[in-house]
Amino acid sequence: MREISGGITAPSGFKAGGIHCGIKKREKDLALIYSENEASASAVFTKNKVQSASIKVSGEHLQHGRARAVIVSSGNANTCTGVRGYKDAKAITALVAKALGTGKEDVLIASTGIIGRFLPIAKFKPGIGRVVKSLSCTGNVSASRAIMTTDTFPKEKAVKFKVGGKDVTIGAMGKGAGMICPSMATMLCFVTTDALIGRSALSKALKTSVDRSFHRITVDGDMSTNDSVFILANGTAGNREIRSGARAFGEFQKALDYVTCEISKMIVKDAEGAKKFIEISVTGGRSQNDVRKVAFNVANSNLVKTALGGENANWGRIASAAGSAGANVQEKKLSIFIGGVRVTKNGDSINYDSRKVKRHLKSEEIKISVDLGLGKKSYTVWTSDLTEDYVKINAGYS
Amino acid sequence: MREISGGITAPSGFKAGGIHCGIKKREKDLALIYSENEASASAVFTKNKVQSASIKVSGEHLQHGRARAVIVSSGNANTCTGVRGYKDAKAITALVAKALGTGKEDVLIASTGIIGRFLPIAKFKPGIGRVVKSLSCTGNVSASRAIMTTDTFPKEKAVKFKVGGKDVTIGAMGKGAGMICPSMATMLCFVTTDALIGRSALSKALKTSVDRSFHRITVDGDMSTNDSVFILANGTAGNREIRSGARAFGEFQKALDYVTCEISKMIVKDAEGAKKFIEISVTGGRSQNDVRKVAFNVANSNLVKTALGGENANWGRIASAAGSAGANVQEKKLSIFIGGVRVTKNGDSINYDSRKVKRHLKSEEIKISVDLGLGKKSYTVWTSDLTEDYVKINAGYS
Repeated sequence: MREISGGITAPSGFKAGGIHCGIKKREKDLALIYSENEASASAVFTKNKVQSASIKVSGEHLQHGRARAVIVSSGNANTCTGVRGYKDAKAITALVAKALGTGKEDVLIASTGIIGRFLPIAKFKPGIGRVVKSLSCTGNVSASRAIMTTDTFPKEKAVKFKVGGKDVTIGAMGKGAGMICPSMATMLCFVTTDALIGRSALSKALKTSVDRSFHRITVDGDMSTNDSVFILANGTAGNREIRSGARAFGEFQKALDYVTCEISKMIVKDAEGAKKFIEISVTGGRSQNDVRKVAFNVANSNLVKTALGGENANWGRIASAAGSAGANVQEKKLSIFIGGVRVTKNGDSINYDSRKVKRHLKSEEIKISVDLGLGKKSYTVWTSDLTEDYVKINAGYS
Repeated sequence: MREISGGITAPSGFKAGGIHCGIKKREKDLALIYSENEASASAVFTKNKVQSASIKVSGEHLQHGRARAVIVSSGNANTCTGVRGYKDAKAITALVAKALGTGKEDVLIASTGIIGRFLPIAKFKPGIGRVVKSLSCTGNVSASRAIMTTDTFPKEKAVKFKVGGKDVTIGAMGKGAGMICPSMATMLCFVTTDALIGRSALSKALKTSVDRSFHRITVDGDMSTNDSVFILANGTAGNREIRSGARAFGEFQKALDYVTCEISKMIVKDAEGAKKFIEISVTGGRSQNDVRKVAFNVANSNLVKTALGGENANWGRIASAAGSAGANVQEKKLSIFIGGVRVTKNGDSINYDSRKVKRHLKSEEIKISVDLGLGKKSYTVWTSDLTEDYVKINAGYS
């Protein structure tokens, strides 16, 4: 497996484009991904009970398991917009289908931006015509920009690997400056591949990858109404069909895991106002649920995040967040490490090399390990620090 | 029932004092509450699995259900300090007992401050002598200052009410600039009363009051290792003993609820960096668990808290936090009100008086209501906004 350039248009048979249609004032706000032939398609959506109309429409269109295109707009989430929002999303996919000459249900849709406002539907008609015209094999560049909101850089990744002697490519683009950050910084990811893989194997691989990547990042603990990860597989690589359980499936899973983890990490690195990328590893748990709960409770603690932002080795806050996670945690078994240096043993204060810890905290990537000392389960979460800039960005936005 | 002054020394038979003993650089850091005769005593402690040595010692001393004194130090939490921390807490209670001439187990202890450092035990010996000498009927003033950490004002309340024709008084002091804010801003509350009330009725009343007050506030969602609420009832009011279930118990409960709710609200009003006091009321839930979950998920959402701090009517964030609470929520039944103005109906965007909402958001006390439209259960939580100052305070602290 090796990294290549090209993002979502790196796999053969995919084109993309991105333009400004008028949802935002100036920046690009409409992206289109297009597969020249019919692709197997699958998606994972937010579990929020308040969901975007776009998710409802995409969910319906995905029932037949195939797709030709995904239309994505940024600046408006089309959420809490009721029947009108649903009709708008349906109308947009129909316009795209007409312009591309595909079936209506072959077009998926995703949105990101503020909640509770209607889409400026009149701007979509000319916009869709232009974005279809802009489709090209290097359109990944403008598409990955057109899906951004508070993001400060576009997020793309592509890898090439072998399946039964044939070259297979997976490409992806993502957006989000907060995994779970409603009304402005929804997490979206679009994966394309030229692998030949059936719908059910594709869904299984995507679900596994999402659990290993997007489900392990958090910026502010706020689950979005629009979070979505889409995958389209057009089967043009010429490989024998990848079937669930076969060795080729393992290869595909590994490559997909890599791409989704890389996009996930980019999202955390671009987290609103953040200066630090923080990895929280929890080991020694008795159950998977315990290590997951502890990892997220530490990662979502405002006190841990502000301390690390301040390059402050206040490990008591980590101990406290571990203890209050509602998990099987025993104070007397708890050990904490910052940048590999043990700062507490069996729940007690110890002497440690504070200069070494200080040096580690000054770096941009911080590693925190919490060993529960009770079992063999482990879990890792990626997060960011909490800064004054985060507050500034989110107090002002509307 | 009427409010009176005097805090914890308002009930007859109680004295208090507060001095500087040297845990902090300059400010008062050691407080003592003393009951002239034996009092029924009860307490509620943090559910964090990492707990202060002070809590362990107080828990043991409370087993016989009586107490004469509570010694409280601020600046150091005596948490994650192992066997040495436990011995220190034991030694301090023994020193206080000796100075007061009471049994060792009649002295309770509480601490607040940074986690993971040993208490400067040598400073306690002379300090305890001085704090005992400082005991007086107006010592509530210095005691309520000596328990402060990042608090900006002392928090006291006292009420007088009738039980079977006799005047009964309840007094309290609290501290915390964050309900649940480990390592620096632990929530502590001490309640005194001259009511004659047995241990089990007292415990029952305290547990109920804590559920109606301290369990309904949140500043940052971080549960402390030291949170404690103590109550001492010395029975000098001359009332007939208050028994659980009797009418007098209802009167006592009502007064205790009032005092603990007032102290709770003061803690939220003093929340680190906060400018707004926010009441989140959730109604129309199918179960108590649902309304509680939704109220806390909205109250702990950094995006809701930053928006309200910015006086920004971004109600989509409230809808999103309600939808992601893991509770029974249906988008189509959801209504949201800001300052009494309905901003969304059945989950959809509606036209509303945005000037009126803007005016309400400019005030210091903000009321948010979320109606789930599914049942009859309701729950209210008090919280604060999230500001740049919160980040500044917590990034810098150690």
